[in-house]
Amino acid sequence: MSPAQGLTIETPDSLHIKEWLRAYQRIRAATEAICAPLHKEDYMVQSMPDVSPPKWHIAHVSWFFEAFILKPFHPAYQTLDPAYDHLFNSYYVTHGTPFPRPERGMISRPTVDDVYRYRAHVDRAMEELLNDPPQEHLQEILRRLELGLPHEQQHQELLLMDIKHILAQNPLCPAYRDDLAPTPVHEVAALGWHAYPAGVQYIGHDDTEEGFAYDNEMGRHRQFVEAFQIADRPVTNGEFLEFMRAGGYDKPDHWLSDGWATVKAEGWQAPLYWVERDGVWHHYTLGGLVPVDMNAPVCHVSFYEADAYAQWAGARLPTEAEWETVAHDAAIQGNFVEQDHLQPVSAAGSTGVLGQMFGDVWEWTGSAYRPYPGFRKLPGSLGEYNGKFMSGQMVLRGGCCATPADHIRVTYRNFFPPHARWAFSGFRLAKESL
Amino acid sequence: MSPAQGLTIETPDSLHIKEWLRAYQRIRAATEAICAPLHKEDYMVQSMPDVSPPKWHIAHVSWFFEAFILKPFHPAYQTLDPAYDHLFNSYYVTHGTPFPRPERGMISRPTVDDVYRYRAHVDRAMEELLNDPPQEHLQEILRRLELGLPHEQQHQELLLMDIKHILAQNPLCPAYRDDLAPTPVHEVAALGWHAYPAGVQYIGHDDTEEGFAYDNEMGRHRQFVEAFQIADRPVTNGEFLEFMRAGGYDKPDHWLSDGWATVKAEGWQAPLYWVERDGVWHHYTLGGLVPVDMNAPVCHVSFYEADAYAQWAGARLPTEAEWETVAHDAAIQGNFVEQDHLQPVSAAGSTGVLGQMFGDVWEWTGSAYRPYPGFRKLPGSLGEYNGKFMSGQMVLRGGCCATPADHIRVTYRNFFPPHARWAFSGFRLAKESL
Amino acid sequence: MSPAQGLTIETPDSLHIKEWLRAYQRIRAATEAICAPLHKEDYMVQSMPDVSPPKWHIAHVSWFFEAFILKPFHPAYQTLDPAYDHLFNSYYVTHGTPFPRPERGMISRPTVDDVYRYRAHVDRAMEELLNDPPQEHLQEILRRLELGLPHEQQHQELLLMDIKHILAQNPLCPAYRDDLAPTPVHEVAALGWHAYPAGVQYIGHDDTEEGFAYDNEMGRHRQFVEAFQIADRPVTNGEFLEFMRAGGYDKPDHWLSDGWATVKAEGWQAPLYWVERDGVWHHYTLGGLVPVDMNAPVCHVSFYEADAYAQWAGARLPTEAEWETVAHDAAIQGNFVEQDHLQPVSAAGSTGVLGQMFGDVWEWTGSAYRPYPGFRKLPGSLGEYNGKFMSGQMVLRGGCCATPADHIRVTYRNFFPPHARWAFSGFRLAKESL
Amino acid sequence: MSPAQGLTIETPDSLHIKEWLRAYQRIRAATEAICAPLHKEDYMVQSMPDVSPPKWHIAHVSWFFEAFILKPFHPAYQTLDPAYDHLFNSYYVTHGTPFPRPERGMISRPTVDDVYRYRAHVDRAMEELLNDPPQEHLQEILRRLELGLPHEQQHQELLLMDIKHILAQNPLCPAYRDDLAPTPVHEVAALGWHAYPAGVQYIGHDDTEEGFAYDNEMGRHRQFVEAFQIADRPVTNGEFLEFMRAGGYDKPDHWLSDGWATVKAEGWQAPLYWVERDGVWHHYTLGGLVPVDMNAPVCHVSFYEADAYAQWAGARLPTEAEWETVAHDAAIQGNFVEQDHLQPVSAAGSTGVLGQMFGDVWEWTGSAYRPYPGFRKLPGSLGEYNGKFMSGQMVLRGGCCATPADHIRVTYRNFFPPHARWAFSGFRLAKESL
Repeated sequence: MSPAQGLTIETPDSLHIKEWLRAYQRIRAATEAICAPLHKEDYMVQSMPDVSPPKWHIAHVSWFFEAFILKPFHPAYQTLDPAYDHLFNSYYVTHGTPFPRPERGMISRPTVDDVYRYRAHVDRAMEELLNDPPQEHLQEILRRLELGLPHEQQHQELLLMDIKHILAQNPLCPAYRDDLAPTPVHEVAALGWHAYPAGVQYIGHDDTEEGFAYDNEMGRHRQFVEAFQIADRPVTNGEFLEFMRAGGYDKPDHWLSDGWATVKAEGWQAPLYWVERDGVWHHYTLGGLVPVDMNAPVCHVSFYEADAYAQWAGARLPTEAEWETVAHDAAIQGNFVEQDHLQPVSAAGSTGVLGQMFGDVWEWTGSAYRPYPGFRKLPGSLGEYNGKFMSGQMVLRGGCCATPADHIRVTYRNFFPPHARWAFSGFRLAKESL
Repeated sequence: MSPAQGLTIETPDSLHIKEWLRAYQRIRAATEAICAPLHKEDYMVQSMPDVSPPKWHIAHVSWFFEAFILKPFHPAYQTLDPAYDHLFNSYYVTHGTPFPRPERGMISRPTVDDVYRYRAHVDRAMEELLNDPPQEHLQEILRRLELGLPHEQQHQELLLMDIKHILAQNPLCPAYRDDLAPTPVHEVAALGWHAYPAGVQYIGHDDTEEGFAYDNEMGRHRQFVEAFQIADRPVTNGEFLEFMRAGGYDKPDHWLSDGWATVKAEGWQAPLYWVERDGVWHHYTLGGLVPVDMNAPVCHVSFYEADAYAQWAGARLPTEAEWETVAHDAAIQGNFVEQDHLQPVSAAGSTGVLGQMFGDVWEWTGSAYRPYPGFRKLPGSLGEYNGKFMSGQMVLRGGCCATPADHIRVTYRNFFPPHARWAFSGFRLAKESL
Repeated sequence: MSPAQGLTIETPDSLHIKEWLRAYQRIRAATEAICAPLHKEDYMVQSMPDVSPPKWHIAHVSWFFEAFILKPFHPAYQTLDPAYDHLFNSYYVTHGTPFPRPERGMISRPTVDDVYRYRAHVDRAMEELLNDPPQEHLQEILRRLELGLPHEQQHQELLLMDIKHILAQNPLCPAYRDDLAPTPVHEVAALGWHAYPAGVQYIGHDDTEEGFAYDNEMGRHRQFVEAFQIADRPVTNGEFLEFMRAGGYDKPDHWLSDGWATVKAEGWQAPLYWVERDGVWHHYTLGGLVPVDMNAPVCHVSFYEADAYAQWAGARLPTEAEWETVAHDAAIQGNFVEQDHLQPVSAAGSTGVLGQMFGDVWEWTGSAYRPYPGFRKLPGSLGEYNGKFMSGQMVLRGGCCATPADHIRVTYRNFFPPHARWAFSGFRLAKESL
Repeated sequence: MSPAQGLTIETPDSLHIKEWLRAYQRIRAATEAICAPLHKEDYMVQSMPDVSPPKWHIAHVSWFFEAFILKPFHPAYQTLDPAYDHLFNSYYVTHGTPFPRPERGMISRPTVDDVYRYRAHVDRAMEELLNDPPQEHLQEILRRLELGLPHEQQHQELLLMDIKHILAQNPLCPAYRDDLAPTPVHEVAALGWHAYPAGVQYIGHDDTEEGFAYDNEMGRHRQFVEAFQIADRPVTNGEFLEFMRAGGYDKPDHWLSDGWATVKAEGWQAPLYWVERDGVWHHYTLGGLVPVDMNAPVCHVSFYEADAYAQWAGARLPTEAEWETVAHDAAIQGNFVEQDHLQPVSAAGSTGVLGQMFGDVWEWTGSAYRPYPGFRKLPGSLGEYNGKFMSGQMVLRGGCCATPADHIRVTYRNFFPPHARWAFSGFRLAKESL
């Protein structure tokens, strides 16, 4: 379900526009709910260059609506502070000069209160605009709104990733929340395999159909997928621990060359956030430091670790075409942000179907993030949204425990560099058919 | 044509083995011919971590035969110095601990003379072995020889790349040779396009057929290639200069994000080896510093530059499947190392066919270097030959002016990181069909 | 005047101890007054590794009293949180493992409110202790208090330096305070020189006299100071601008080799915080961005810049023995923190005496920071206070506009690395006698 | 004895000039003798940025005579190659743009043979000039020659330091020479102390006396040296091993802060070139890898290690004024390059006098390298010889086993950064008088 399911941008009537406004309000409120447990001090930290201070997220998503909708289309819009256009531009170099990303944590003013004032200012203007939209721009406004809402949802997930990374720097291991939904405990069933025959598959978003998709999911095209098998669930913490105990992090044999170099340079000995206490593996979660549930999907591993595990296990990662082929057979349900675990959980025993394709962990695929045939960037500065990142990254699929359920799709392509670990990233095995 | 064309390893008779020996001698001699113009001092330089001193190349390719053929299969083989197994192992971590790559230029002993003595020692032993091979190991010996010979040819090309980079550090711009074959001067024709229809293609090496291929060219598999068009020749220096003059290196608009960061960090303003002298673009070649031939293919550009040019030109790079589909229509002939230009040259006017698919410049494709479905590493340490490099790199196709003609194939996959420029790398445009 | 002038630690009676308590309360209150204008967000920023977040300062100075006085000598003291001993230890490696300095800005919890609670907790315990001190430890308690109070004063100056650096990162140039005392405007007189004859001088603190001094000011010893001349005031912004206009930052001629390398690496073109706006030099001050007062002492220059200016001007920096010899002739009065300018100001025209020896700017000397003959570290962990920093740094003398007036002495030795610029550092010229 | 002892530059007659020529020839020949055992490959290596390839040294010292004597004063001089003025300028930025130091090892042409041709070319011209000098420039020529000869001698020592560092990179541990003079074996006597009373000392070179000295040894001036004691010999390997066994490299207690940071960053566990083999400490010497002589002075330690040892031993390093005061009582004899050990050796038992003040190891002092009062740079580019390095370095005194005996003086000031270890650097203890 898209953020504005069933809403059309082609022939919107006033009723539809009201629904767009409600979707806007709902999604904006969700962002604020995520930040509610934070102290002002938490809002300020940039724990690594990839992480943004929560204060910045709060401002940037508002800037997105200001820069791309209010300034062009709201005739009376006055910005709160002209400097914000520089401070809260993320990476749109054709729009202006973005403030340097690694220095986002250096800026104490505007304060958190200032930023929320900016946010409220933008919200008021958006409501004005949507209550009385200029008809000649209405389609373009909705087109941009249709992008701005999932953009904000992406930052909701980033906020949770970043908050986790920020609080994890603290030797006190403070919990983000102590009222998270309890995690179920299931004994996971032995790994099973599903076989798929060879054939031509349509891959990517069909833009003749209803519903939003990012530019990187288009153009829809054919791929020949050779016969393959895919595991019926992700690899678990317990299985990954076997790899560790077999010397997985100590021997280069199963690693990509870049992966092994990263292991040595970073001193990796376990997934991110894992720490051994009195002989028991714990990991930091948004609920604090807890023992690792060996039945839950392994999380916070890099592509390099996923690939090394797969090689050690005599398997490989699925390609994104394989994953997408399979995903059509699975329901888009699972452990999303709405379940309020904010960590992957163990699934109930095998049900004879593909488990946990959606939610829990983003699944690393073996595919580099490159454009589909016929890919076209959006016009203008929004063309920078996805296209310029199509090198040096790998595709992940399926969403995770921090993703809004209505944000994900079968064709959704997420991407991170192969060394990144702070996303909720795990993996599922594939192999050739016999 | 493979290095030992028509030679079988399945049922070799003594006649065949003699031909293998002759191929060995021919290829080993070619390496030495490449080094003949060098001074001992040239043999010592490591101009960047990616470059190896020529002395190291000379020793390493000998070590390859020693480590993988002589030690396992020559019953009486005595190594010249046990330390060489450490010093001249490149990256085979399952074989032993390689001497650190960035420090190859720190090692003055063994001297160049010592290394040639080692080389001769290995050659004598190889001749002994091939003149009287142990029958029970014969197939395995030939299988490894079949890999060792193209391995040595790869290092011939690397030697020329590295020698060029080494001498180019020198403000005196010394020529490697002053007797290179003169470069033809042709007025290149306007760029033309060839259209290909959509369809399923077989990609990769067919191992039921005769002839050697690397493991990374297998397994052969089907890909659906949507309709596309491809340029009938590579982009020229003159065309690339237009991009430069249009501010190509000054504006981020057409660049991948990583590419633009690299442009700024490295201060790129032109292809590698280009320098302006009195308002005229020159470039360093193995024959010294000469004015740039505007009709020759642009060379020593990174993937990032190739991609930015293509975006600026409203086109894109071909995928490797597209390239391979097209390459079946082109003869494997062109400007290879045997032409003795050692730089790309301008082609004669359009002939109505695909020009310069082979030779001149390696062509960047838009495909990341990842395993084919069904890829299997070689057993043992030789499994490290290609597989572990399958991340963070892009595929190049077609060979170049420093490649031996009998080394290249339609299915040959070369690969470099997207920022690399010291290979003889250029590119060809593709675009969607109308 | 020392923080506890006239207070003895040898034979303290209850009256004296009350005065110590009042000094404690006064100095602790001064720290909090400095932080009063800050937002919580300002408390969090670490703008470079040398800078500490104000929150950390607030906690660390409290930790100092806790670790070195309360825990050893207050029989009933309970710490608020055992983790603080790690988090707020600055560099006392013999006391425990300090939290890594460059990561001080990563820690959002304890919050600012928590840290003030910790501060109040320590203050209550200190008051209890001083109201009813254990007699057998009284001298040691006072000895440590006598160090802890100037320690806190040092952090008051560091807080102002760090707050300035933190806010200066912000392109909005926010003022720390808009109610600073107005800066006087004087036309400064031409530079004059005072000549001193050769002779043996006693240098360093005389510990047979009353009054506190740091260990690094002892032992008092004799130095032969050859005849020299010293300028009657520091170099001004206007004079420094002449150096800039003469190409001071563009030519290596007058620079130390390390200094020139730093100029190139850092791109220095002016003192820290200077920026040209519409052809007029401005600089960021704690009152915001203002035009540079050309009659005020130049500030925020490194030792390298001071030395280069001096060489360009045909002079040199004074040694610290020369400076100390001269300083006996000057009154310890001037532009200190109490004047509430928080920036150097122009002095009234020449009065025939040495001007601005104290206050305004710390004056770089030509002397490396090394121990005096007979230097002895304090016993225990407090031995790390000064001694271990005696390499790689240069001595500065005289205090500045951010120094409490009762904190400075003729013998006071401040020190920074030669490239440091965020202290309120300027300089005064010296030269040989004719 | 200076390189041209007894030679005057004030009123030179033709006999004197012949002696200058002989001194020139003798010193130039000594450089070539040092390089005689090298292979061409050894000439090429730059094992770290501080090290220069021997080929570069050979050329640079010739360039010095060309740039500062031949070009200005030899009327018919023709350079061999104008590019050499750029390539072989070390750091004289007012003379031209030096080739970047860290890239000296990148330049294979001119070859070693070319460089020796350049050297011979310079020598012929120098002989011409000195056989028939232009009388009007004679004094300036001799003044520059008087600097050029010790300059070449400094490079002789640097050559030995650099060759040792170069060959030590090689896991084969090749010996530079296998015919070095055998090292004597003495049981060293227990450390004794000599006491010196307080008093004013004249420090620095007296330029009213005959004999050459560098600018940094002037101007002669008075220092008050408080009473002190100094050890009668340097600290030995055996004594330093006790420090190591006491956890010297494992605990921060005795280290300067910068020193301890360096220990951790570099992983230091022993002096440079030390390696444990089968439980026995060996070290690499110019004669190859040999067991450490526990009675010889410890060598290849940084200032940080010397200072940490001294603090651990309850002592300190002498200041350079103390060292110079003492050195007047010692004869300038000892283990210099002429003894041909090329490593420090154990001294015979105590003789009741100060031992090994000269030769064996450069002795770290506790004094930073700063100008003396009245220091004046030489005019012109030669002013860069010493002055611009007077920051960030510590003074060493007394020469070493690689120093020509006639190169050293009581007033001689050598200097290295506190972390440097590749010089033949050791130390001697001092302490206060009781």
